Amino acid sequence: MNRQELISQIKTKKSYLCVGLDSDIQKIPAHLLNAQDPIFEFNQRIIDATEKYAVSYKLNTAFYEALGTKGWESLQKTIEYLPKDVFIIADAKRGDIGNTSSQYAKAFFENLNSDAVTVAPYMGEDSVKPFLEIENKWTILLALTSNIGAQDFEMLELKNGKKLYEEVLEKSQQWGTEDNLMYVVGATKAEYIANIRKIIPNHFLLVPGVGAQGGSLEEVSKAGMTKDCGLLINSSRQIIYASKDRDFAEMAAQKAKQMQQEMALQLAVTS
Amino acid sequence: MNRQELISQIKTKKSYLCVGLDSDIQKIPAHLLNAQDPIFEFNQRIIDATEKYAVSYKLNTAFYEALGTKGWESLQKTIEYLPKDVFIIADAKRGDIGNTSSQYAKAFFENLNSDAVTVAPYMGEDSVKPFLEIENKWTILLALTSNIGAQDFEMLELKNGKKLYEEVLEKSQQWGTEDNLMYVVGATKAEYIANIRKIIPNHFLLVPGVGAQGGSLEEVSKAGMTKDCGLLINSSRQIIYASKDRDFAEMAAQKAKQMQQEMALQLAVTS
Repeated sequence: MNRQELISQIKTKKSYLCVGLDSDIQKIPAHLLNAQDPIFEFNQRIIDATEKYAVSYKLNTAFYEALGTKGWESLQKTIEYLPKDVFIIADAKRGDIGNTSSQYAKAFFENLNSDAVTVAPYMGEDSVKPFLEIENKWTILLALTSNIGAQDFEMLELKNGKKLYEEVLEKSQQWGTEDNLMYVVGATKAEYIANIRKIIPNHFLLVPGVGAQGGSLEEVSKAGMTKDCGLLINSSRQIIYASKDRDFAEMAAQKAKQMQQEMALQLAVTS
Repeated sequence: MNRQELISQIKTKKSYLCVGLDSDIQKIPAHLLNAQDPIFEFNQRIIDATEKYAVSYKLNTAFYEALGTKGWESLQKTIEYLPKDVFIIADAKRGDIGNTSSQYAKAFFENLNSDAVTVAPYMGEDSVKPFLEIENKWTILLALTSNIGAQDFEMLELKNGKKLYEEVLEKSQQWGTEDNLMYVVGATKAEYIANIRKIIPNHFLLVPGVGAQGGSLEEVSKAGMTKDCGLLINSSRQIIYASKDRDFAEMAAQKAKQMQQEMALQLAVTS
């Protein structure tokens, strides 16, 4: 999916919601555990219930890899099941030397056919470039994450006066464009988003950490929204585990709808 | 495998060689492509041929993920096939917020039963800790990698005068011990290893980049070896693709034996 198609989806659905399918076999409703593939069963029901309200789905690969081959199968089937008009993110946080990153790009863009993959910046340009080279696909680079550990390195001050995450934003802009590069910026750091917008005024941001991790949808939107929206706000646990009973899909829909309505409001204010 | 067992293997085999099973379906000998699982077939032959000379095997997960579910199966079967006395590294370069890293720890330590997993430091302490919490398992943290992109961030100078990779080494020492934490240090940066030894005198280093990427076994060993050896030197392409014909396993054995002999010499000099 290209940038224009994504923006058009956002306008049509009045939503920049990304539903995080962090589907954990320990946490899905017990009555699903008898299904042949409980995780896929769960994901199908969540997707059916939320697709009206979401423009994007993010699959965190850790939850699938934890189940081995069977999990990888659920991941594959889920991506095939997703509607054609949503932006599919493989949240894999990969990154390795060039020839190895090419293999990851193949795994996520060719075999799994996702639109985007999250990538860790530590190893620098040649670890990121192979992802950017695949046409019509997106790299979402970790910049400032929502966890406490973001203090350890991401927020460190460099000799040149910038913080490490600012250097990541500045340097990586030369590697890709607004049409193939986005950034992960945690919502728990909403106060930094205005500053981040000075460095990257137009790139899309993937924002996790709204809800369960304490970030505010309104604050993040006010600080980060551009004329093209420029935001994908992810919610995982709050939506997919809104209920652990037989009404889980219905409750997920309710929660997603509520977020979509808040987003429609924010879009109306800004545009 | 614990530290004492690893050291004892190194002494018994007079080797600190790690064979990197970066097994690429595009590069393995053509006559194997008719096998039911060509990658597993290739790995079995390489393992049989080299296990006398190697104390460790490293599986770079990218090459397996590139083949989807089938690749994940080959990965699983290869780890099951490996002899009990070798140190098994899943070279996965993972790292995510805490509850997600726990899922990765489960994937690589429980389901795949590897001894160690490589982890990227960018997201800080809470992204690394879940790996360190699993008993008798190892985290191998990226410090200074062998690729050109290491210049982009790893080598950046911080306000406190240290380079980022030095800060990673110093800070992370508080998260783990010499018994569960190793570091990736690229061999193409051999001149930095003496400096690194000042910060971490006893931790094991996993050193890629000898051979194909230009690092020298002798230089790295002289700079980095401790009284307990403290090194695992990885060679992938030079060994596993020593020949692309029917004699590939034999040639891999020759190449591994040659490296082991150089290592025996270095061990004799230092101990």
